[in-house]
Parts: sequence; structure tokens; C-alpha cells
Amino acid sequence: MKPTILIQLDTDDQPSVFDSVVAIDAGAQHLFPCAAITAENVTARVHGAIFTRGPKDLAQTAIFIGGSDVARAEAVLKSVRQAFFGPLRVSVMLDPNGANTTAVAAVRAAAAIMPLAGSRALVLAATGPVGSRVVRLLARAGVAVKVASRNRPRAQAACDAVRVLVSGAALEPCNPTTPAELQAALDGVQIVVAAGAAGVTLLPAEVWTRNQGLRAAIDLNAVPPLGIEGIEAQDRGLTRGQCVCYGALGVGAAKMKLHRAAISRLFTRNDLVLDAEELYALAEELG
Amino acid sequence: MKPTILIQLDTDDQPSVFDSVVAIDAGAQHLFPCAAITAENVTARVHGAIFTRGPKDLAQTAIFIGGSDVARAEAVLKSVRQAFFGPLRVSVMLDPNGANTTAVAAVRAAAAIMPLAGSRALVLAATGPVGSRVVRLLARAGVAVKVASRNRPRAQAACDAVRVLVSGAALEPCNPTTPAELQAALDGVQIVVAAGAAGVTLLPAEVWTRNQGLRAAIDLNAVPPLGIEGIEAQDRGLTRGQCVCYGALGVGAAKMKLHRAAISRLFTRNDLVLDAEELYALAEELG
Amino acid sequence: MKPTILIQLDTDDQPSVFDSVVAIDAGAQHLFPCAAITAENVTARVHGAIFTRGPKDLAQTAIFIGGSDVARAEAVLKSVRQAFFGPLRVSVMLDPNGANTTAVAAVRAAAAIMPLAGSRALVLAATGPVGSRVVRLLARAGVAVKVASRNRPRAQAACDAVRVLVSGAALEPCNPTTPAELQAALDGVQIVVAAGAAGVTLLPAEVWTRNQGLRAAIDLNAVPPLGIEGIEAQDRGLTRGQCVCYGALGVGAAKMKLHRAAISRLFTRNDLVLDAEELYALAEELG
Repeated sequence: MKPTILIQLDTDDQPSVFDSVVAIDAGAQHLFPCAAITAENVTARVHGAIFTRGPKDLAQTAIFIGGSDVARAEAVLKSVRQAFFGPLRVSVMLDPNGANTTAVAAVRAAAAIMPLAGSRALVLAATGPVGSRVVRLLARAGVAVKVASRNRPRAQAACDAVRVLVSGAALEPCNPTTPAELQAALDGVQIVVAAGAAGVTLLPAEVWTRNQGLRAAIDLNAVPPLGIEGIEAQDRGLTRGQCVCYGALGVGAAKMKLHRAAISRLFTRNDLVLDAEELYALAEELG
Repeated sequence: MKPTILIQLDTDDQPSVFDSVVAIDAGAQHLFPCAAITAENVTARVHGAIFTRGPKDLAQTAIFIGGSDVARAEAVLKSVRQAFFGPLRVSVMLDPNGANTTAVAAVRAAAAIMPLAGSRALVLAATGPVGSRVVRLLARAGVAVKVASRNRPRAQAACDAVRVLVSGAALEPCNPTTPAELQAALDGVQIVVAAGAAGVTLLPAEVWTRNQGLRAAIDLNAVPPLGIEGIEAQDRGLTRGQCVCYGALGVGAAKMKLHRAAISRLFTRNDLVLDAEELYALAEELG
Repeated sequence: MKPTILIQLDTDDQPSVFDSVVAIDAGAQHLFPCAAITAENVTARVHGAIFTRGPKDLAQTAIFIGGSDVARAEAVLKSVRQAFFGPLRVSVMLDPNGANTTAVAAVRAAAAIMPLAGSRALVLAATGPVGSRVVRLLARAGVAVKVASRNRPRAQAACDAVRVLVSGAALEPCNPTTPAELQAALDGVQIVVAAGAAGVTLLPAEVWTRNQGLRAAIDLNAVPPLGIEGIEAQDRGLTRGQCVCYGALGVGAAKMKLHRAAISRLFTRNDLVLDAEELYALAEELG
């Protein structure tokens, strides 16, 4: 059996050391970090991956797509898939900026607190790379989601984009900003997820702590002040009032475990494409 | 014994993933892929290779020179050799764009069909990196070669360049383009090799299939339409009419085997320079 | 136990092959060479190093800072230290252009010849990256040092810089250029070290060979003509006249041994910072 090789495709000028270390710890025997990858220059990398080993050894080669720009990474994934030749392909994982593994870990945290199907959620900063994936995964799990953004047209566009992927998704755009608007947005909601930028408070403590129906509050910003005031980054299933809380570091342990398991999984077949949904299924399997 | 290290010097902006995978599969324990290598910046790389290990361990370090531009790779090889200090040197392989291993595999395919010495060949697109190496290797094997290019002065220049390397080479420049001219060029020829660009037909089926003396037809373009009409890329010693045929993928298996064997060979001594001729000798040895 | 990973941060456009080979030979199981590292872009690399492994595995990850520009490497080290989060840190070694290991090996060579404390030394080209470290290490060892440069204000500045680091250092700036001035500068001196540019003679043979008190002459320039005329690059404790001599290659063996030992040492803890003084202590320990 040939040794495993992970081709780490990064759209940034420097390949992510974070992704490289996780790849090694997931058991990749050889790692090829490639920086400055684009939808154009990636084709030759893919050909190098698929034309060098026989069909029975192709599962020993895999591709990871990372980098800080999620849209560019998605364009790279599209090119990678186009460069495959029928059965001549290798497994691929997409996790730019950890957006997929973070979103999956956040939704899995909510699922550990309560059954998702039939529940209602509010996702703050829902139009960013992590937020939009949280919305998508919640919608697939049967959650009715209020998709919040400071920019109403972007909230609407995010809803439209998810509806294309998830038929029958119950989505509602909103742009609550004042405490009263946020309180109204939380009405009838059991799950709130904040997926905003580092150091920006999106939800004051006085608003969410007085909501009696809220059962899960998950914040994905590790840099104080956090997105949901009153949560600590280390919270990992801590009950505050009536609500089970997760902070970014609390979600991080499950995220890391999933990231490593996903890399290992790549080497079991040569035809996997691990995007948000497939990573969610893997996280369910890991338990 | 220290672990083996292959320093992969690539003249392109991204190091070839193809070459990296082959290096690992050939058994290199550590690989240092270096992109954007030039004849100027390579000197420090070479010093890093030769000044770090004692004389008895220098065979455990080797250099591979690749990239899509053969002329630039050759300039890098020249600098590498100049950077050596007497016995302080490491083994080197030159195979930019696979030009050497492809040319060797093509000529070895012809040699498996018939004795080369004393035969006559037509090489189409003979002035490119692969074609010129095919001419050089055929000439060394005692074949009289018609060196064809659409550009007559370039055909002449290619002949002149090979004559410098192979004394007594029997070479004749030509620029056949019409079917009648191609038919005339094939007259008295037993071997035809097409080394042209992807997707360009150089020799119509009606021309070569009616030539009674032709015994070997080898095409090195994997992208349809192929260079020799009527051959399939997968042909690997398939007899079509009176002629044994090889397509690019059919030649590819021997090329890959040679590439891997050559990398392994680098680590047996510290003074090898594996260019076209040395790779041909290695292929002969592999059988 | 997780495998060891060395993150090789290089401020040059190409990572040093020299440093990469030494890292492998020192036993690093995985190497991540990173080129074009700056004080700005290094922070994300450090976070990738410290946020991926649990506290008990952080000693298995380490950082090496190299490159040809010592000042830029020092700025990178400063950023690296600022990017650590309390106990979340990894061990670091600084050795741009080999300046630290070379300076240590030079001073250790002198220490093998005679007790350093209380002796007097002349350091030529003392304001460069290696020379200034030699001055610093000699001063710490209790040597009174004449700090020579062709530029008197730079010699003064170098003295001032070392005095900040080594309290009570006995330093004297000078700029001897003529044979008579050099002879005067050598008066009362037991140790002379030349740390100048390649191919530049700093001290004529006729000057130093007639000095009766000189006991150690160490030259760190490997490219003829050497900095101290009459020494050979291979000299390794060779007695010439009354003086024990070392050339650059003679010092090099101890330098390489120290470099390798230092890389290995990085993986024993997660809080080491190996700069000149720490490397000197390690060299003393190695004996």
C-alpha cells in the first residue's frame, strides 16, 4: 500500500500552519502544502494527483481545500471537480477558515441539547461563511430559521441561496439591531447562534437572558467581547439561567475532532467530497 | 544511515504535484519542493544540499529538476553542476515536463519492435523538448532520422544541435505538410514518432496506413485528436495493419516506471547526472 | 505521542535548504518550510502552531527562525513571542544565516584554548550579525573586548548595544586599518576573531604572527582570501607559531553539531527560546 499524501490547497499567500498540523495529527503520512491556489492554477495540481497512482491506490491521495477566503475556496473546489476524469479522482475536503467544521460543530452542539426538527432558531451574522453554513445545516435538520444580518438584502439573498440547496427550507430574513428588535426576533426561538466577526457584540445579555423559551445559545467568536454577551468563550454546555451555552472554544474541541476524523476519512475511498452536509453526517456518526 | 531527501527544484510558480507524488512513491523519505527556481537562485539550494551532510551521507540527498519550461530547467541544471565543489556533490535528475522520461519511453517502445541500428525514422514536431530528445536518442542508437518541423530553419537548427552531441549522427531536416509531402517523408522509414502539441493531428491515417515499410508508429499526444490519426492514446504495442502502435498513455506506463526507478537510483551514489542518455541506459537495464 | 513538527520560518523568498536538511538530520519528523515570513504575517503561523495540539503535546511542535537577514529574523522572533498566549506556546530557535551557532562555535573554540574570564580579545568586523554576537558572548564570559569596525560610530553603537544586554561589559570601540594600527589594537590581546565578509583580508599575517601574547586566532570567512591571512579555512585547533588557529570550516563542525543538538532540544519542552546565550549554554553542556 502506498503512503498517504494530502495535497493542502490554500488560496492564501501562505499555506495555513493550522491546517498542516491537523493534517499530520490526522495521520497523513506526507503533506504537500500549496499556497496561492486559484481556480485556474489548481487544474495541474489535480492532474498531478490523479495521473500518478493506479486506480487501486488513488484512495491514498487526497485534497484539502483551505484558506481565509471561503468564496475563493469554493471556486477552487468547483475547478477540482471539473478536473477529475470519471473514475480518475481523489477524495476532497473543503474547510476554508474552518467554516465547515465550525458550522457543523455549532449545529451538533444544538442537536445535543434538544431535538432539532420542528424547532426554531435565530442565526445572527447569518450571511458570512460560517453563518450561512449554520443556516443551511439547521434548515436541513428541519429547523425554521430566522436569518439575521445588518443588511436586509443580504439576509434575503442568503435565504434564497439556501432554498436552492434545501428544498422546503423554512427561512425568514430579518435585520434586528435594537434591543427591542432583537427581543422580537428571539420570540418563539429555542436556539440562537452568533456567527459574527471577532470582538463584536451582537446580542446583549439583557435581551436573551429574559427570553424564557430559549434553550441553546451558541457563540462562535473567540475574541472578547463575544457575540452573545454573557457567554464565555470556554463555555461547553454550561447552563446559564434556563439556557445551555457554548462559546467558541467550547465548540472548538468538537470542531478539531471532526477536522481530524474527516482527514482520516478521506483516505478510505477516492470519491468523497466532504462539504458541510457530508461533514455533518460524519459528525453524527462520530457521536 | 540518514534518511533520503529529494530536493525538487521547479522553475514554475508552483512545484509540480505530479513530480512530488512520483518522488514519494519512488521512496524518497523527505521531499523539499521548491518553486520559482532560476539559474541564479539555485546556487544557495545546492550549497544547502552539499554542505550539510558528510561525504558518506551525500548519496542520501539528491536533486530533481522539473517544471514546464525545458530550456529554463536545463539552465538550472547547468548552475547546479557549477555549484558543486569537487567531491561535494549530490546526484541530479533532469525531467522537466517529463520530456526525458517520455522521450526515452518512446524510443524504448520502438526498440522493442525492431533493432534500431541501421533503421530509418521520421520524427514529427521534432524541434520541441520531447521531439528533440527523441531525435537525439534515436541518433545515438544508430538510426538515420528525418527531423520534421513546420519551420524549416528550426528543423535545421535541431539537426545542428544534435550533431554537436552525437558525432556522426545521420540527420536530415524536412518540413512536410501536405499529404504528398508526408508520404514522401515516410518513404524508406520504419519508425514514425509524433511529438507535437496536444490536440493537433500531424499525420493523417490515409498517409501512414498505406506505407508498407512502416513497422512502428508512436504518438505522444494524449489529447484527441491525436498526432497520428488512427492511433488510440491507450495503444500499447497494438498492431494496426502492418504497424505496431503506441499512444501517449501506452507509452506512459513505461515512462512512469522509469521515472520512479530513476529517483530511486539517485540515492545509490552522489555523483549521478540523469539526463536523456543516462535515463535511456537505465531503461535498458530495467528491460 | 504526536510526531514532532518543525515550522521553519524563513524571511527570504526561498526557505533555506541548509536549514531544512539540518532539521531532518536532527530528527524532526515533519518539516513545514515557510518562505517570505515577516513580522506581520508570522502571527497566523504561530497561532496555527499553538492552537492545534493540547498542552501536553505542545513540546512536539517547534519553530525555527532563519533567513539571510538577521535584523528581519529578530523582528520575526519578537512577533512570535508576542503571539504566544501564556502557556500556549512552543519552543523557538533563532539562527538566521547561522549567526548564532557560528558565533557560539567561535567563542567555544577560544574557550577550549584558554580560560576566557579575565582575558582580552580583538573582534574584527565586530558590527555584523556574527561579530556582534561574538562580542556579546565574549563579554558575558568576562572577556575585555576591543570592538573593531572600519566605521568608528558603528563600533561605538555596537558597544552600546551589547552594554544594554551585558551589564558591566568591558568594551572598547576601535577602527584599526593600517598594519601599525592593527598591531596596536592587538597589544595585550590573547584572542583575535575575524567575522568579516567573504574574501576580504582584515589582518595581514605579518601583523599577528609577530604578536607574542596572542594565543587564539579564529577566522569565520570560508572564501579565500580569508580574513586572517595565514590561517586556512580547514584549521581546527592547529598551532601556527605560538597561536592556536581555527578557520571557518574548522569551526563549522562544532557549529553543525550545535545546530542539530539545538533542534533536538526544542522538542524537550514547549517554552524554550534558543538565542545566542541559550545556545552557548547548550554548547557548554555538549562539551
